[in-house]
Amino acid sequence: MRYPEPLLKLIRALSGLPGLGPKTAQKLALHLVFHPEAREGLKEALKEAEALSPCPVCGNLSLGGLCAICQDESRDRRLLCVVESVQDLYALERSGEYSGLYHVLGGTLNPLEGVGPKELNLEALFARLEGVEEVILATGMTVEGEATALYLAEELKKRGVRTSRLAYGLPMGGSLEYVDEVTLSRALEGRRPV
Amino acid sequence: MRYPEPLLKLIRALSGLPGLGPKTAQKLALHLVFHPEAREGLKEALKEAEALSPCPVCGNLSLGGLCAICQDESRDRRLLCVVESVQDLYALERSGEYSGLYHVLGGTLNPLEGVGPKELNLEALFARLEGVEEVILATGMTVEGEATALYLAEELKKRGVRTSRLAYGLPMGGSLEYVDEVTLSRALEGRRPV
Repeated sequence: MRYPEPLLKLIRALSGLPGLGPKTAQKLALHLVFHPEAREGLKEALKEAEALSPCPVCGNLSLGGLCAICQDESRDRRLLCVVESVQDLYALERSGEYSGLYHVLGGTLNPLEGVGPKELNLEALFARLEGVEEVILATGMTVEGEATALYLAEELKKRGVRTSRLAYGLPMGGSLEYVDEVTLSRALEGRRPV
Repeated sequence: MRYPEPLLKLIRALSGLPGLGPKTAQKLALHLVFHPEAREGLKEALKEAEALSPCPVCGNLSLGGLCAICQDESRDRRLLCVVESVQDLYALERSGEYSGLYHVLGGTLNPLEGVGPKELNLEALFARLEGVEEVILATGMTVEGEATALYLAEELKKRGVRTSRLAYGLPMGGSLEYVDEVTLSRALEGRRPV
């Protein structure tokens, strides 16, 4: 005796999502089957999510046309911050420290997984450099993030744009004892007068 | 700058599901926003899942009316296996060892979380004991599962029905070294001649 087909279909739809294994998908699917209000809530939220689309300029989420950040006249248009994802963009927004514009790459260079420059939102980046005085490379401090930042730094240099990279160092609350050697040596290298 | 409202709504709908934390919900929501085909697939699967409802007799999933197991004339109607959930029912089905009927409780007794006998599918169980010769108590070997089995054993004894419990012991492939003491002492207690 196997699960009924509609349940199998729901399990398949869920287990195709990132980070959901078959066991979690099965648990979620059964919860959704037995809880009509959760199912309806999710269905409605999925329907409303159709209103969202990528901003044609920066790749951020938008409710149609330019996103709220690109539309905001009070933002400093001389600063452009390149991030991997929309999550990273909102993480920077939450810091409250940045008032320039963004550019969302939609990933990092990763030749092993077939992600080259053409797979990223790069053409739109190179097309919007007029009036930009500094591009902040805010990709992650991972191998792929570093490679992407290096590639972008070279490409932007060719186009005569100044670039910078987020600082390496210890995280807030970080104890020296538990920090890896590379981070520690970079934190030393980047030390600042107090 | 906060996430747009439709995205927040989708994150809320997802993070209300069991086992999904806010970070996973956020990742899933953004994936669903940027992948219309995944979103549509999930929406359709949720719609089709509406066809499923609990079997009025045993609580298993059904496509309307009695479930496939209750309908199956070849099943041994003298045996009734009580399980916590639909997942557990299908786990037993996969073992291929059992050919009787099932009864799904929909949980275990858990006074701390306000789950008493009234919150479980018990009335329907006591109403279907006619012709049943043995009730197999197949709740989990957890504290709550054990308490529920004990409670049911007493209630069923009053009603003159024979009950049994799944065997305790070492799991297949289990090494003695890594098995806890309680399991080991129960396995000793339940030893069988070879």
